Amino acid sequence: MKIVEKIKLPIHKEMELFEEKFKDSMASQVPLLNRITYYIIRRKGKQMRPMFVFLVAKMVSSGKMTERTYRGASVIELIHTATLVHDDVVDDSNRRRGFFSINALWKNKIAVLVGDFLLSKGLLLSIDNDDFDILKLISIAVREMSEGELLQIEKARKLDITEKVYFEIIRQKTATLIAACCGIGAASVDATSEEIEKMRIFGEYIGMAFQMKDDLFDYTDDQIGKPTGIDIKERKMTLPLIYALNVAQKKEKEWIINSVKNHNRDKIRVKEVIEKVKTLGGIEYTTNKMLEYQQKAYDLIKDYPESEYKTSLITMVNYVIDRKI
Amino acid sequence: MKIVEKIKLPIHKEMELFEEKFKDSMASQVPLLNRITYYIIRRKGKQMRPMFVFLVAKMVSSGKMTERTYRGASVIELIHTATLVHDDVVDDSNRRRGFFSINALWKNKIAVLVGDFLLSKGLLLSIDNDDFDILKLISIAVREMSEGELLQIEKARKLDITEKVYFEIIRQKTATLIAACCGIGAASVDATSEEIEKMRIFGEYIGMAFQMKDDLFDYTDDQIGKPTGIDIKERKMTLPLIYALNVAQKKEKEWIINSVKNHNRDKIRVKEVIEKVKTLGGIEYTTNKMLEYQQKAYDLIKDYPESEYKTSLITMVNYVIDRKI
Repeated sequence: MKIVEKIKLPIHKEMELFEEKFKDSMASQVPLLNRITYYIIRRKGKQMRPMFVFLVAKMVSSGKMTERTYRGASVIELIHTATLVHDDVVDDSNRRRGFFSINALWKNKIAVLVGDFLLSKGLLLSIDNDDFDILKLISIAVREMSEGELLQIEKARKLDITEKVYFEIIRQKTATLIAACCGIGAASVDATSEEIEKMRIFGEYIGMAFQMKDDLFDYTDDQIGKPTGIDIKERKMTLPLIYALNVAQKKEKEWIINSVKNHNRDKIRVKEVIEKVKTLGGIEYTTNKMLEYQQKAYDLIKDYPESEYKTSLITMVNYVIDRKI
Repeated sequence: MKIVEKIKLPIHKEMELFEEKFKDSMASQVPLLNRITYYIIRRKGKQMRPMFVFLVAKMVSSGKMTERTYRGASVIELIHTATLVHDDVVDDSNRRRGFFSINALWKNKIAVLVGDFLLSKGLLLSIDNDDFDILKLISIAVREMSEGELLQIEKARKLDITEKVYFEIIRQKTATLIAACCGIGAASVDATSEEIEKMRIFGEYIGMAFQMKDDLFDYTDDQIGKPTGIDIKERKMTLPLIYALNVAQKKEKEWIINSVKNHNRDKIRVKEVIEKVKTLGGIEYTTNKMLEYQQKAYDLIKDYPESEYKTSLITMVNYVIDRKI
């Protein structure tokens, strides 16, 4: 059994029902919109985010779930889909999950509007049902995602970026939505505000670890295939490189900066930079940081009684760290 | 005194205070964002939408206003600014109010993100202050604006578009935000839900009249300069043309359709189409419809006692109809 299927096992019925509800949540009077959302649904991803909502809800409430949990999951997936559609415009990308992106098939104009539509549908789903705690969690996530992307655009190509700024970027860009998933899961079963906040931070830690894993792919051959070196080519500064620059001797540091600045399209030079980052301990440092966040996430749920939901959540956290893609 | 200044007179202090508050509402931790929002504020428009919020609030409550009125106006202006930034991406436009657009100066990527940021800041301003009625009015407007634009993309170039679809497009695309302004103005001073709905519809009628006036510019020489004919060139079907096609004889109808379909870039032919639309009564019909909506708007406020706010609102409605640009 594939790992994702295994994680899904205790909530597979809920996930099936969710798909129906999610589909309904996108309905519109505009035929063009319905054609586009139909296309989106057919090419759906692994739906990790709704899974977080359901598993956290069930873990904190010993297996209970409510209509609000379904709505919370739909809101998250609507917002996530909206940001993917906008991201493809932002990155001028033609592909998404092996299929053509919305902007490739229907142009940027329509993709921006579809993103805005999905965003407002997500918000209205919460508003119409007075789910104000869910609404707040998701609105903060929307703000932080756009701020995080813009902070990345502004800072991530500067060679003097600090570790602190790196963590702020990945917290906002990636971790905030997984944090919202877990917070919303807890909020949907009437957890106390302390517990909602605890679960929100649990999700944030997972999100941070997830992004560090992603950034490590550029430097390691863990995954299928070789280190990609794409980030170096695009002069995107991530933790392995930031750490390496921090500990490098003056000469080494100058060589790395010169390489990233002026030779970032030279494949052999990029490979040498990757080797240098390894030698200086950038991979090890980032891996340790990632495991630290993983451990902090575990610690936050250790007092919950054992259950199939908790087991699935732990498997999911492990998967975030061990995945090959 | 310019007409807009005259309208603003009874609320000019509030508008000044509003500008401060609006500026604060856009603040971010990300320096790039603050540079962009600073640019936006310096190039602000006439701020008709906040004016609607203030004037309606003051008219229905005999001059009172609350902190919620200011927040409602800021929310409206944040959302309106977000849609303008997105619209310029959508239309691939380099100019806005005589200055470079955000996408022209900072690229599409950043413009999409700035739009999302402003949208979420608007929503959070309501959420953080528990202004849920304001939030609902604005979220419906966001959904309808994106649906209206998409409906227009889908239908407005079809030569068999009906009057009903035309009205639905302009209601969603243009009128819904002015409706939200007036509804929010009333909601901000604790009007009853009936009164909020009445003011919402008041705004919707004004918005419909506003868009009909806009569409008339294509066919009349009311405004500075000649009829533009841009809509015909872009094969965008608006009410004057829709009506003309409805009443035309078979031969005339075929000639118009053929002209719009195959000769829409021929300036002389476009001029002939404009003349034909005039002869068939398309201008008169649209003007009458516009005045009908104006009258319906007046009727909704006729029972409010006379006040400088009501006078300003009526002047504003007249300006919508009489404006030259």
